[in-house]
Amino acid sequence: MQALLIEGCDILTVENGAVHFSPRQDILIEGAYIKAIEPTGCLPISNEVERLPAQGLLAIPGLINTHAHVPMVLFRGLAEDVTIEAWFNDYIFPLESNLTSEDVYWGTLLGLAEMIEAGVTYVADHYFFMDEVAQAVSEAGLRANLVWAVFGHEGESKLARTVQFIQRWQGAAEGRITTWLGPHAPYTTTPDFLRLCAHYARDMGVGIHIHVSETAAQVAYSRQLYGKSPIRVLLESKVLEVPTLLAHCLYPEEEDYKILADHPTGIAHAPKTYLKLGMGTAPISRFRSAGIPVGLATDGVVSNNTLDILEQMRLLALTQKDAARDSTVMPIAEVLEIAFEGGARVVQQAGALGALKPGYLADVALLRQDRAAMFPRYNPAANLIYSASAQDVDTVICNGQVLMRDRRLLTLDKTKIKEEVQRRLERLSQRVPGRRIATYPV
Amino acid sequence: MQALLIEGCDILTVENGAVHFSPRQDILIEGAYIKAIEPTGCLPISNEVERLPAQGLLAIPGLINTHAHVPMVLFRGLAEDVTIEAWFNDYIFPLESNLTSEDVYWGTLLGLAEMIEAGVTYVADHYFFMDEVAQAVSEAGLRANLVWAVFGHEGESKLARTVQFIQRWQGAAEGRITTWLGPHAPYTTTPDFLRLCAHYARDMGVGIHIHVSETAAQVAYSRQLYGKSPIRVLLESKVLEVPTLLAHCLYPEEEDYKILADHPTGIAHAPKTYLKLGMGTAPISRFRSAGIPVGLATDGVVSNNTLDILEQMRLLALTQKDAARDSTVMPIAEVLEIAFEGGARVVQQAGALGALKPGYLADVALLRQDRAAMFPRYNPAANLIYSASAQDVDTVICNGQVLMRDRRLLTLDKTKIKEEVQRRLERLSQRVPGRRIATYPV
Repeated sequence: MQALLIEGCDILTVENGAVHFSPRQDILIEGAYIKAIEPTGCLPISNEVERLPAQGLLAIPGLINTHAHVPMVLFRGLAEDVTIEAWFNDYIFPLESNLTSEDVYWGTLLGLAEMIEAGVTYVADHYFFMDEVAQAVSEAGLRANLVWAVFGHEGESKLARTVQFIQRWQGAAEGRITTWLGPHAPYTTTPDFLRLCAHYARDMGVGIHIHVSETAAQVAYSRQLYGKSPIRVLLESKVLEVPTLLAHCLYPEEEDYKILADHPTGIAHAPKTYLKLGMGTAPISRFRSAGIPVGLATDGVVSNNTLDILEQMRLLALTQKDAARDSTVMPIAEVLEIAFEGGARVVQQAGALGALKPGYLADVALLRQDRAAMFPRYNPAANLIYSASAQDVDTVICNGQVLMRDRRLLTLDKTKIKEEVQRRLERLSQRVPGRRIATYPV
Repeated sequence: MQALLIEGCDILTVENGAVHFSPRQDILIEGAYIKAIEPTGCLPISNEVERLPAQGLLAIPGLINTHAHVPMVLFRGLAEDVTIEAWFNDYIFPLESNLTSEDVYWGTLLGLAEMIEAGVTYVADHYFFMDEVAQAVSEAGLRANLVWAVFGHEGESKLARTVQFIQRWQGAAEGRITTWLGPHAPYTTTPDFLRLCAHYARDMGVGIHIHVSETAAQVAYSRQLYGKSPIRVLLESKVLEVPTLLAHCLYPEEEDYKILADHPTGIAHAPKTYLKLGMGTAPISRFRSAGIPVGLATDGVVSNNTLDILEQMRLLALTQKDAARDSTVMPIAEVLEIAFEGGARVVQQAGALGALKPGYLADVALLRQDRAAMFPRYNPAANLIYSASAQDVDTVICNGQVLMRDRRLLTLDKTKIKEEVQRRLERLSQRVPGRRIATYPV
């Protein structure tokens, strides 16, 4: 079995609400798993083990992006400073009507390159042309949960095709790829359609990844149509009986907390998107005190501009302190819990991802700490959350494989990817009036 | 006269509310000034001109930090997740009672290294032991407006010594250093003390840099003591008759807008600090529509954690959109106006700094655009604000001198600075109970 020794790194962990900083550690990886972690020089190592010197680098669990639309990197910067309605109806949906499967493939590779450069090793992605997304994930070497988005108006035959996608790719790429169902949202489907999704998911033993309660208007729309909250619509459609990844959920109603806590749900929280679109924020402390898992997410880059989870860590802390008008809320340990273990729980990987421990999968990001802005180091966790950026990530390992070393991508050819994307830009940026894949109703 | 040609860079400018992106330009610098800007290859250049190849780099005006306490980098990470009262009384003031002038010198060098690494070429700094700060600025090569902070309880003799500091350093370091007066705040001085400051400032033809209306409690405290807002206290003390740099001003009263607009004032806005301390935010759009200049600032790193103006640009946009619950407010062009020209106006350098134009001082930051997160480039200004970070800054020029090239600092020895700071850390991090330089009253 292939073995790799990360030598002499510092390790940042969080357990039971306390941050631990362990300087000068060795991490032994065998195959896809972390085998042992000990102070540097203490592990008996055979000559066959590949050594990765990491003195001065800070090791954290590979970051988990719990909700994205990766191929939308193709549209980065194309819909700035517009309303959320215009964002959907005048930009995103018309833009997406231009996309081909090959565009999605190259866009995914660009987004995966960006995530590796930012220390992200897992993404829960919600888009279409997902065979090409899966192919790109397989090549890039990171880990993904993939769903093929489906709107209610696309009908049962389209839903059946997304079921076939699940069957084609479940467990592929040495187990790095898992596949779920992706009905778009309660406001773009019907309860009957959702019930059918839940039926398929239960049958296949998979989960559901869906947008919900993003705006107060969406909740009001649900009340007007059905007399109940979008969360209750999901409950009564039996969606919540399977593992359910809920993107955003900024506006839960009072009764929704108990519904969510009583079911295998988790919240994907994308604070930069919420700030940029003026959407408000989610009641993270309420979710957590109710026992509902929360992880961090970027959403697509047309709202977020980047696929950077480190940035979401910072914005999680800043926005929760701001919303509470209280500088003591969302302390450093809780930010790390949400980013690391919380992300793993939301994608149903608790105990396998989100920590650096023997027996966990070997997904690791190693960050440089040498900029002036990262010094002194009284508090390495504060430096990580409030000073570090994606560019401080030096080395990335996923499933035991080194994907980036010294900021050089090892599995992807960035020059080639940029050339392929550039070739497509002119056509892609031309919006086609009247041609949309869906209409945002509220 | 020494001449430098920045060859083939892209240039981002903003004028009359419109962003302009000019690819492949040459910038000719003679001495401390920009002499000419033309499409690459079009300027007649003698052989004596030093050439700085900059193909693929994005040129922006050197960034202006309108309010900082640079030496506080020494305390980075020491006061996390605490209340604003504890922040002052249990952390900052006791910590500062340990500082020596030599600590301040080395702390300043560390902070200046951080700012150069982040493309910041101008800082308005408000601290003490300012001779050492001025010495450090002189060596580092960037530009600064320096004030020696003075509290009311320190008395007139201390104020007189800060006047002597002004006289010692005004116009030093080839004109890169200007000096003003720095009464700490209306809540830590008296109206009589402020009147004396205004008298000195008028006499010397200098400005005043002061904290004001940071919290609603401070405004209430002023009303209780004096029956008027802190801004009106400044007006009636004649402070506003000289150029006045107002740090923060989150809670102006209705009548304050007209007072500020009718006087040579400007606001230093530090959104990361406000988020982190749960302070709320400032009414930036109101200030601007009233004609009051606004620039960006970091405050000290014990609240902000970094001295990074690019990050403040992003947070300015995000927090203003969030506060207005409107994704169309604070559009990209306005963010650039505030960061570039706004900063220059706040430090009374309009027409000399804040733009890349012939006749302006040669303060330039050049950013890499090669990360996956900066591609595609439909909208280079959106990429700058929403994707770029300090680490993308490649080259920094101030007053015609290259301070950083290829991320290597040319005027400062970062290794030596870190060693000197590290030596001081243990003593500095020991808080001395009961020993404070001041007490925060509200």
